[in-house]
Formats: sequence, C-alpha cells, structure tokens
Amino acid sequence: MLRVLRSPWFAAGVSLAIGTGVGASLHSLQKDTTASSTDRLLDHDLHSLLSRVPVIPLPSVEAATELTVYRGGPVGSKPGAVMKYGFPSLANIKSRESYITSYDPRTRTASWVIEQLTPGSLTGTSDRKYSDFKEDDSVHVYHRSTNQDYKGSGFDRGHLAAAANHKWSQKAMDDTFILSNVSPQCPHLNRKAWNNLEQLCRSLTKQYLNVYVCTGPLYLPRAEADGKLYVRYQVLGRNHVAVPTHFFKVLILERAGGQGVELRSYVLPNNPVEDNVPLESFLVPIETIERASGLLFVPNIMKMTGSLQAISDR
Amino acid sequence: MLRVLRSPWFAAGVSLAIGTGVGASLHSLQKDTTASSTDRLLDHDLHSLLSRVPVIPLPSVEAATELTVYRGGPVGSKPGAVMKYGFPSLANIKSRESYITSYDPRTRTASWVIEQLTPGSLTGTSDRKYSDFKEDDSVHVYHRSTNQDYKGSGFDRGHLAAAANHKWSQKAMDDTFILSNVSPQCPHLNRKAWNNLEQLCRSLTKQYLNVYVCTGPLYLPRAEADGKLYVRYQVLGRNHVAVPTHFFKVLILERAGGQGVELRSYVLPNNPVEDNVPLESFLVPIETIERASGLLFVPNIMKMTGSLQAISDR
Repeated sequence: MLRVLRSPWFAAGVSLAIGTGVGASLHSLQKDTTASSTDRLLDHDLHSLLSRVPVIPLPSVEAATELTVYRGGPVGSKPGAVMKYGFPSLANIKSRESYITSYDPRTRTASWVIEQLTPGSLTGTSDRKYSDFKEDDSVHVYHRSTNQDYKGSGFDRGHLAAAANHKWSQKAMDDTFILSNVSPQCPHLNRKAWNNLEQLCRSLTKQYLNVYVCTGPLYLPRAEADGKLYVRYQVLGRNHVAVPTHFFKVLILERAGGQGVELRSYVLPNNPVEDNVPLESFLVPIETIERASGLLFVPNIMKMTGSLQAISDR
Repeated sequence: MLRVLRSPWFAAGVSLAIGTGVGASLHSLQKDTTASSTDRLLDHDLHSLLSRVPVIPLPSVEAATELTVYRGGPVGSKPGAVMKYGFPSLANIKSRESYITSYDPRTRTASWVIEQLTPGSLTGTSDRKYSDFKEDDSVHVYHRSTNQDYKGSGFDRGHLAAAANHKWSQKAMDDTFILSNVSPQCPHLNRKAWNNLEQLCRSLTKQYLNVYVCTGPLYLPRAEADGKLYVRYQVLGRNHVAVPTHFFKVLILERAGGQGVELRSYVLPNNPVEDNVPLESFLVPIETIERASGLLFVPNIMKMTGSLQAISDR
C-alpha cells in the first residue's frame, strides 16, 4: 500500500531547501504538468517569501480500515495513546506526562515532540505561573541546554509541546517547561504566527475525534552567493544550543465515524511572520518534512489506517 | 568512579568551537592555572591554525581491573568484540562485517563508526579494486546518500572505517564502501593527513593488544563577523548530504599485560592539512568530542576498565 502511494515521490528525489530570499521561502514541490504522470514532482525554485504549495498527490484510499479511537482526552485515555501512530524516529525516547519526545544530544533540543490534544486536555485549572523552565536531568550535562544558555540571546524559550495544551494537569503543564521540550525561537514568531498555529491545533479538537500534534525543529539549507547550498544556524550559550532555521508541526487528525485520518503539515521560518499571513500558506507536503528532518511519519500512520488524506493546501 | 573523574569538567561547561581563523583552529581546553583545582578547565581563545592542547586531566586509576581481551583479530574474535566498550549512542545501529555504525538520517551519513583493528584484520588478499561504493539499502530512500550526490561536488567519498583496515575479508572490505560509512571529505585531507592518521591506527596494532577505532563527522560552530557562533556546512546533491566541518577519531588502545586502556582522540578539519603538521597537533581532550558530537565514550569505557589514561598530547 505504502509503496504504491509513495513510489512516484521516490523517483523525484525532491528535497526541502530555503530559497535565496529572506530565509522564509521554501523550495516547493509541485505537480509536474509536463510529465505524463500527474504524481511526478519536480524541484521548483520559488523565491517568494512564503510560497504556496498545492495539494500533495497522496491519494485517499477507498477502503477505510477500522480505527481504534481513544476518546475523552488524557483523562481516561489509554497509556501510550499519544503514540498511536508510531515513533518518527527511535533515538533517545523520553516519556513525559504530556508528551513523548526524541532528544537530539548534538543540537541540545528535541528532534520531535508528540502530544495528544482533546477537549479534556485543554481544560483544567493548571496555570503556567506555577511552572518554571528547568534543565532536563535525564540528559547528560554535556548535552543539555540550560536557562543560562538562553539568557540575553534574544531568543525565546519556545515550547514545542505547548503549555496551554495541557491544562488538565499541573504536572503535565510543568513537563512542557523541561528544556528538552524547548527550542530557541524568534520572539515575534513565538507570540504571533506560531501562537496562532498552536491555537488552531486546539480548535481542531472540536472538529476531529483525536488530534495528535508532532512538533520539531528543522535546519534547512539555503543557496549562498557561490550557488552552493549551506545549512547555517546560530548556537547559543556555553552549551551551543542550536537555533533552528524553521519549525514543523505535523497534525494527525482522526475523523469521526471511521472516516480515516487527515494529515496537515506546516513549516514556519524561525523569523518574524506577520499576523495577516494565513497559516495555510505554511502547509507543505509531508514528504518535505520527512526528507529535511530525517524522520518518517507516513509509513507508521499507514500501518494504522487505510484512509489517509494529506492536506497541503486548502 | 566516573563522577569523581569527570565532575571537575562538568563545572567548566567547555564546548568545542572553531576560532575565527581559517576554519581549522579549535577552541582549546587547558588547565586553569589560576584556579586552586588543577583539574578545573576554562575556555581559552586560540586563533592559531592548529592549537596544541595539553594532556587532559583524566587521572589514571591505580587499581586496574582485569580486561577480557579478544586476541587474533576478526578471525577468531568473538562476535560483538568490536563493541566491547559500548555504543557512543543508540540510534539507528547497523552491524556490518567490518564495523558497527550509528546512522544519522538527517545528515545522510553516520554519527559514528567503530571498528576493531588487529594484525589479523590488516592481512589478507582483499583488494579495493573489487569494491564499489554503493547506497545503503537499509536506509529509507529519503535519508540516504547516493553516488550521484557526490558527483562533481569536489569532495571525495571519504571512508569512516578505512578499507585498508579490513583486508582479512573481501566482504568486510566491500562493506566499508557502503555510503553510510562515507562522508564528503576534502580530497587533500583524505589523501594526506587523514590517510596518515589511518596508517597510524594500523601501526598501533603492533604496540597494543587491541585497537578500537571510532570515527565520525563533526559540525562545529565558529564565530562570525557579528560575534555570534554559527554552525555552517555545505550539503551536496539532491539528497543534501552534509559536508562535515571536521572529523574525529577516538582510539581505544588496550595495553598488554592488564595495563589498562589508553585513549587518544583526534579532531581534524575537513580542509587541506599539510603533510608536515604532526598528527599530535590534532589530539584533543575526549570531552571536546563528546560535547560537540552529542556522543559519550568515557562512561562506557569506565565500565570495562578501572585504568583509563587519556592522552591528548605527547
């Protein structure tokens, strides 16, 4: 099944890169209209600030398989439900009250963080005023970030799993303040567009049976003056905490009534993004995130459902 | 034991970075002569091309524990002997005829490769003219490098585990040509100083009971004009294969007669290095590699021996 769905992409060898623009533009993927197969993709140089990307050619499969659904949010949800759709990678997995994460000891931040959002998880009396950013004691001192690394850097301590997603338990909210769930984030982004995306995730719990959100950093290459591609990112403090060039969010949305799974995948630059830019502009094909991050999402999801619709623009 | 040996380093928070020189200089570590503890380390700005680093303060422990030694090289060695001193990390482990490796799907090359060298492994009729560089089929097509990525790039396909270390078996030699054991390497480095270091590793098999070699890429930050530290590296081809800024080799050398283990750790820049620069100039404290790579060597080695002497300059 997977092979049939994905094989046209394999041939394309398309990679995610940053254009020569302000750092926010993406090499996009688009259907190759000159090719006989409409599924065939080509690199396309786009230098606009935020290139729009068409719907990716991942067809919805007719025969939806039965989904095992966990209702009711963290309260009453089965242990491990947050990882229903598998692990994007298997390195340095850490399980927390509100999320599961894979830690990257070289960049001193997570490779990804997955959380499950439901109306239940969004409700409660927990308050971030009781939470403090704290080092991850489970990470070797050589490889962890500290509050000191961020101090005076000009970057926010940006949550990957958002605090406001876990009002259901103070412990769950506290765990989102562990620094391995944090990346250096442009303050403007953190407080505007990124915050809007987090709010969108929460609002989707009204529409979908289950909302799984996977968030992580990206370090994307861009063309420099010599015409070659380079990855370049700042590192902060004594521990050299990597400042991602971009962030991704992959939303795995379970439809009610056994209607299968919808996938939405976003990439935002770690730069100021104006409020009036619609979030839909940041939708990208899941393949671009899979290639750039070294992670895999679709194979695991396909094991759980025969009906996957990937939305890259609507 | 480990804590006693290493705790003075923890406080120092020293990180490996590149100076503002030609890209080959290293932030070095040196004893803080002003501090009461001679073990205390401080960052020291050195902008020389190749800064010399003093012997690192990892004391040899008197009570040497018994070593279980595997004699005679790959022929007759026990399975897994190559990993006697553990895994520097646990992500994406792949076991090959001549080495064990941890693959990094984001950079499309290994995080580290470990091999065991003995007089036996260096002897045989295997010939690299029968070996071809080939893709690693065990890696998802999104995350592997191809020969095409290297073509016309100006970089060699540099072996991490060296082909000439595995003359004992054509299959073992062939496996060193799998592209996950390969990184983009400056041709001058590959053919001169790096080759010399590989030859040194082989020559040490005459002197030590067992020679374990762990090799991998580094992506080190350097200060840019704005005074901030940035990691910057080129990526090659459609698959964006990362070009490391540096390479490390960690040599775990077992002395005969239960005399414990000696550790030598080298960092070379991925740039031309003249032949007349002594290899000793590239010795660095193991901590600098552990911090920069996100890997850990010493804790695992300490589990196997009470007598570890780390050589950073001689």
